[in-house]
Amino acid sequence: MKVFRERNQALMTDLYQLTMAAGYFKYKRETMGVFELFVRDLCPRRSYLVVAGIEQALDYLETLSFSKEEIHFLKNLPLFKNVDGEFFDFLENFKFSGDVWAAPEGSIIFSNEPILQVVAPITEAQIVETFLLSIINFETMIATKASRMFHAAKEKGVVDFGSRRAQGPEAAILAARASYVGGCVGTSNVYAGKEYNIPIYGTIAHSWVMSFESEIESFKKYNSIFPDNTVLLLDTYDTIEAAKKIKEFKGKIRGVRLDSGNIELESRKIRKILDSNGMKDVIIIASSDLNEYVIDKFSEKNTPIDMYGVGTELVTSPDAPSIGGVYKLVEIREKGKIRYTAKLSEGKSTIPGQKQIFRKIENNYFSEDILGLHSEGENFKKHTPILEKVMESGRIIKLERDLKKIRENSIKNLKMVKEKYKDINTCEEFPVKLSKNLKKLLERVKNEIHTGGH
Amino acid sequence: MKVFRERNQALMTDLYQLTMAAGYFKYKRETMGVFELFVRDLCPRRSYLVVAGIEQALDYLETLSFSKEEIHFLKNLPLFKNVDGEFFDFLENFKFSGDVWAAPEGSIIFSNEPILQVVAPITEAQIVETFLLSIINFETMIATKASRMFHAAKEKGVVDFGSRRAQGPEAAILAARASYVGGCVGTSNVYAGKEYNIPIYGTIAHSWVMSFESEIESFKKYNSIFPDNTVLLLDTYDTIEAAKKIKEFKGKIRGVRLDSGNIELESRKIRKILDSNGMKDVIIIASSDLNEYVIDKFSEKNTPIDMYGVGTELVTSPDAPSIGGVYKLVEIREKGKIRYTAKLSEGKSTIPGQKQIFRKIENNYFSEDILGLHSEGENFKKHTPILEKVMESGRIIKLERDLKKIRENSIKNLKMVKEKYKDINTCEEFPVKLSKNLKKLLERVKNEIHTGGH
Repeated sequence: MKVFRERNQALMTDLYQLTMAAGYFKYKRETMGVFELFVRDLCPRRSYLVVAGIEQALDYLETLSFSKEEIHFLKNLPLFKNVDGEFFDFLENFKFSGDVWAAPEGSIIFSNEPILQVVAPITEAQIVETFLLSIINFETMIATKASRMFHAAKEKGVVDFGSRRAQGPEAAILAARASYVGGCVGTSNVYAGKEYNIPIYGTIAHSWVMSFESEIESFKKYNSIFPDNTVLLLDTYDTIEAAKKIKEFKGKIRGVRLDSGNIELESRKIRKILDSNGMKDVIIIASSDLNEYVIDKFSEKNTPIDMYGVGTELVTSPDAPSIGGVYKLVEIREKGKIRYTAKLSEGKSTIPGQKQIFRKIENNYFSEDILGLHSEGENFKKHTPILEKVMESGRIIKLERDLKKIRENSIKNLKMVKEKYKDINTCEEFPVKLSKNLKKLLERVKNEIHTGGH
Repeated sequence: MKVFRERNQALMTDLYQLTMAAGYFKYKRETMGVFELFVRDLCPRRSYLVVAGIEQALDYLETLSFSKEEIHFLKNLPLFKNVDGEFFDFLENFKFSGDVWAAPEGSIIFSNEPILQVVAPITEAQIVETFLLSIINFETMIATKASRMFHAAKEKGVVDFGSRRAQGPEAAILAARASYVGGCVGTSNVYAGKEYNIPIYGTIAHSWVMSFESEIESFKKYNSIFPDNTVLLLDTYDTIEAAKKIKEFKGKIRGVRLDSGNIELESRKIRKILDSNGMKDVIIIASSDLNEYVIDKFSEKNTPIDMYGVGTELVTSPDAPSIGGVYKLVEIREKGKIRYTAKLSEGKSTIPGQKQIFRKIENNYFSEDILGLHSEGENFKKHTPILEKVMESGRIIKLERDLKKIRENSIKNLKMVKEKYKDINTCEEFPVKLSKNLKKLLERVKNEIHTGGH
């Protein structure tokens, strides 16, 4: 959305990012920090993630600035009373100046693999954490959920109908975008359709049917205006009765929609009614709390459904309502030296050093990933590096904005994931190994922390 | 947010709202529709809801308009090729002209009770459905989740730390707002703090600790800038070791934070360390995937935690990741007559007629709600009507914007809910009865549908 480049969003962050920034500005002005955004263990809820949200993240970084009003607000918080005026001058001239590496949108990544890396003066890198996490966590969660539905639906189309259950209107637009990245064929969200050139879909609602005195009249009236795009909603009163009435219907119908009841059973009855009345080309669209598990069963049973409308389950992803992405400091570069950093917190430890994902591809399938240091590309010449430099000194240098291409890329990548990792009912951990050098580094850093008086 | 009054948001809707609007404009231009936004059965996941999002909903309605660019986009969709130009002229001059009734923010409502009612030309009422649902569904879900945590935490404060796990930056702000409505004492989100005058909270992150060569140095440096607001994060390397180091610490500390490990056990150890070192007034803040169930256990065991920071669980509400609010047509007013409408879909039926919630309050507790027709106030003079007229002919006539007052209202209301309905581990259905007149109407409408050739 344009809004990601235009609005004042500097305060869309956690307070501690700004207090820490004031601290870094005072004590670590020349220090560079390397932060990595990644998700720890995907299993048991997910086996892979489809990366999304990079465009919004980079647009934010490229245009981030503090308005006078925002600075005035901060300056007047009692909390900031000991902070030097120089820090607020810095904010007034703020321009993100770092480099960013990222997995392109539509990439498939696995546990512990960086989605995005920020290499910047630590003051700047800290301020942007919250925004980057919220956008990438969310879009990646949705693209992944959509990808699972896409896979379960086989050749049938899945459409995002989730706007009304997303976390507000902006989230609805981002969900539409991310679900298209993950493989949906379109969305009901008009704004997203316009902004991102996503195919827009729609049927009719129960209110349309109820607003007329008879169901058949409501069908005919709609058809008179939208003769090429009439999808009739059948379940307002009695689904099968409504389907039978369609016989009398003279207009052209594109499809019918079922939104309640036993969809498996009713879709078969309706298919028969349609077929025996010369309406073989009228498609059946199902909605009503569908998810990948339900769609998978329909696929297995060859249920005669031609298209799925998914809403709540797509935009809230209830089986994994957060992917838990984090943004962690892995390197400090100061006074000409690199210091590698790690946290050892119980169940939340991290791996030091700026990394690259080196992917082995065999027979057109992803077979293994090596998580190595960025600098050891020479050791993995036969592997494909996944992270690309997308921003240099605060300017975007590489970014695919064409969402159709991103979607094609995501579908192409998904084909290269072996079936066992795509099984929605199990969780097989894809092999992600640490390179020898990275293992050594991790041991060394742990030792340093234990002996170094941290 | 101001953005809810200023941006172009007319296309933030589902496509079918606009195609149906074109249809209503052609066939039902003079028809008024009454739509109700409500949640069907709350149990087993919730027993009550805390209403939030009304301010954003009304700001949207009062300022909604279509830009030339938006109309141009619609006009050029092949789908709209048979729609008369007159409809686009109507959009160009669009101004929401309806009346709205709503439960004030911070109200407590129960299953099937309307949160909001729109009485407007049906064309207008249909267009606004998606936006109203997304904003009210979301904020009400969060306010309710926050209310459950507020209740579980007893007298201890709960703070929203969820921005990084919300559905993007705007959702983070709305979540901060709604969680304050529900009883949180504040948020980490700076934008929300500024916009809604919510107290802002912050500690430090692991990155701050790691960026210094020693943990204690990082503590001292932070304290030098924020002497009155230092909350030290203890679990970067070894929580208990870090707590012991604080002895050497000469500065004033407000608190310490635990973000991993066995918080029950470690908080007790740390309380002892602090107390035996003359730091009785240093508070302990816990975070790390807390929710009302965990907080409730801490409360029961008198775990020495003084404040809870809640993130992921607050903003994604995983045990009820959508409250499933719907927006249904209950009355049609045309040609001087009222026609009551209902859908009979399996498991998704609705109750006709514009309703009022008549609440019985006994001994300062809510004892029973009667869902009656709006017009039968005379029958329930001893009850308190919950829905208020908040918008007339498209203008806001009643709206509390002071979030502190809304929060006080929500807490006051929660006190009037009996304990059995607030038990987070069970789901007791609050008695919501239909008035005699409403029951009769429901039967009549069902009969009409069955016999009327729908």
